[in-house]
Amino acid sequence: MQPSGIISLITDFGLTDSYVGQMKGALLRQNPAVRLIDISHAIPRQNISEAAIVLHSSYAFFPSGTVHLLVVDPGVGSQRRILAAEGDGHYFAAPDNGIFSLLLRDHILSRIYLVEKQDFFAETVSSTFHGRDIMAPVAAALAGGLPLAALGPKVSPDSCVCLDLPVARISEKRVTGQVLRLDHFGNIRTTIRRENLKHHQVPCRVRLNGKEITTTISKTYADAEPGELIALIDSDGYLEIAVNTGNAAEQTGCRIGDPIHIEYSDYLTE
Amino acid sequence: MQPSGIISLITDFGLTDSYVGQMKGALLRQNPAVRLIDISHAIPRQNISEAAIVLHSSYAFFPSGTVHLLVVDPGVGSQRRILAAEGDGHYFAAPDNGIFSLLLRDHILSRIYLVEKQDFFAETVSSTFHGRDIMAPVAAALAGGLPLAALGPKVSPDSCVCLDLPVARISEKRVTGQVLRLDHFGNIRTTIRRENLKHHQVPCRVRLNGKEITTTISKTYADAEPGELIALIDSDGYLEIAVNTGNAAEQTGCRIGDPIHIEYSDYLTE
Amino acid sequence: MQPSGIISLITDFGLTDSYVGQMKGALLRQNPAVRLIDISHAIPRQNISEAAIVLHSSYAFFPSGTVHLLVVDPGVGSQRRILAAEGDGHYFAAPDNGIFSLLLRDHILSRIYLVEKQDFFAETVSSTFHGRDIMAPVAAALAGGLPLAALGPKVSPDSCVCLDLPVARISEKRVTGQVLRLDHFGNIRTTIRRENLKHHQVPCRVRLNGKEITTTISKTYADAEPGELIALIDSDGYLEIAVNTGNAAEQTGCRIGDPIHIEYSDYLTE
Repeated sequence: MQPSGIISLITDFGLTDSYVGQMKGALLRQNPAVRLIDISHAIPRQNISEAAIVLHSSYAFFPSGTVHLLVVDPGVGSQRRILAAEGDGHYFAAPDNGIFSLLLRDHILSRIYLVEKQDFFAETVSSTFHGRDIMAPVAAALAGGLPLAALGPKVSPDSCVCLDLPVARISEKRVTGQVLRLDHFGNIRTTIRRENLKHHQVPCRVRLNGKEITTTISKTYADAEPGELIALIDSDGYLEIAVNTGNAAEQTGCRIGDPIHIEYSDYLTE
Repeated sequence: MQPSGIISLITDFGLTDSYVGQMKGALLRQNPAVRLIDISHAIPRQNISEAAIVLHSSYAFFPSGTVHLLVVDPGVGSQRRILAAEGDGHYFAAPDNGIFSLLLRDHILSRIYLVEKQDFFAETVSSTFHGRDIMAPVAAALAGGLPLAALGPKVSPDSCVCLDLPVARISEKRVTGQVLRLDHFGNIRTTIRRENLKHHQVPCRVRLNGKEITTTISKTYADAEPGELIALIDSDGYLEIAVNTGNAAEQTGCRIGDPIHIEYSDYLTE
Repeated sequence: MQPSGIISLITDFGLTDSYVGQMKGALLRQNPAVRLIDISHAIPRQNISEAAIVLHSSYAFFPSGTVHLLVVDPGVGSQRRILAAEGDGHYFAAPDNGIFSLLLRDHILSRIYLVEKQDFFAETVSSTFHGRDIMAPVAAALAGGLPLAALGPKVSPDSCVCLDLPVARISEKRVTGQVLRLDHFGNIRTTIRRENLKHHQVPCRVRLNGKEITTTISKTYADAEPGELIALIDSDGYLEIAVNTGNAAEQTGCRIGDPIHIEYSDYLTE
């Protein structure tokens, strides 16, 4: 696979400190030709699950050969491993703490290597910022064409940390999930995926926190009147509760983890 | 016009989700050579007027041939049109919802086309994220030299959505406007423009919410003592109320829409 | 020194307005080939000291030949000077208001010039946004290879504004500092530097606001149990109080300026 020279960044650093800037400096210092694209620096602090979900939803929109650098690293300085991997036409570099969970679950990573050889590390490696001192120069070297095998030994996917992320439970007449995330627009993303649902024309009852939201899976926001709650499949394939030109999170008062149910047929004729 | 290969971005996506990152991925996937510059992702949600104002104030600072991509798109998935245009040495791509209002008012757009041909759309187009799936690849193709006419038929400026944005009312002895925006520094931007005022040496009385602020139009913040309210023309040509090394919005307690008056001569000798 | 073509940005503009975008436009307009990297736009408004600290901590991570553009400029439009400088393999452009204080203190700047010749200024220079209209085009020209001497006369380091930034006080048995900053993770950065401390194996007592935090200087977060307060040297060389997988600022309730003491030996055997 030919690297694209592009590196995407997902971190929990926020934008109020200079950590992102320093890491970008280190990337460019190793390889001044790389081009850096922020996916998110707003992963909640040390929230590995959310980084895993964002990576899984986002990487495929980038050009083939992009290096995706992920730094949510509460175990920095401990014995946790650092990994570099390849799969589905992309490269990935991250601590071995579960960020790859969804890529592992979906068998997206074809080859995984330990980042061990220090040739590409910064001259001085701090004990608290391996994103800048280890992962950045390694990612920049990968983007410049360094083979993964130059970084260290191959490791088995089974040896990598894999988190149990919440998924929908599916039965003949019911799909049960929970609220996964509230976005900037107040849209409510749930753990239910497009493939968990029957055809969108099959009538159903959508309940959030036990309260009925709608009996239709809509196609887009404008299918509803302004102010009306709707359920639809969002642009990443998740079932979402939204309000046309409104804020569903505020309107429903729901929180992350709240239950959502899709009930089919029998329930509708009760 | 030769494209510069640069694409500027104005959205209401915020930076807490990965929407901006996914859209940048889609831009680079279509054209890996483009260079992406954020103007703002902090347009208030679905606030088309503000996007129109930011675009109008900002585009001309970019190199000729830049593509300005605007995604504030509450009508996504509905029948609202998507437009691509050219004017004043720049390209523009946006939904037809009024974002072009100020460019239309000032006759800046020389040619406008409907974005209709699907050749440049993503393979799978979601119903809720046309910024990523339609506008991004189209903007990237424009930045690579695709002629506007390849996107669809030419449309008339008169057919485009144009919002009535608030403007100052001008009479011989008085200019009446309102508070348009409060910026990060607490500076108060008003709807009054430089060209609405008499020469800055003509004495006047500036009233915000009925309360006199000053009798001078200053040149810069440092013309006043620290803590003192002043009126001046800001870097985008709007009359601004500010405080030298202070926060005028907090100091005056004013809000968007509050009235501002500039009164000339007679009023001063009352 | 060969310019890298990279320009880093440190401002107090925030990201809610379009000021950063306009300045980037102006940079690219002068030199479409430059590559722009944000270090921070979250410097607290008009906080020159913090900009000085962020610059000092961050510049060296960038490739040699990078131009660092700093716009925290409360004196814009006044008689304050604008400077461009070179040192330690980097270029710098900023108002002469103390942003260079730490570079001056550490004798990092080898040559400093006044930015005076208007050839590289914008055609129209506003009185309130010299970052966009003067410093941006000048920085872009430097990144393109313009010699510093083309901007104006050389000036003496002694003539530049230099702020007294807080530093630790050191005696045989005690180091006294104060809280300098609270970061995104709640880590507490202090004014005490690595070089102010004895070897980390020398036992000591660390007191924040008089309250004992620890008797060890740890190497990394994971050296402590989750929830436990620790002292360590952060990735920029400052003594930091942190909590493994927690928020030290919240846990201690400390504020910027609060006192911190490191006490050696005798105190431990009291």
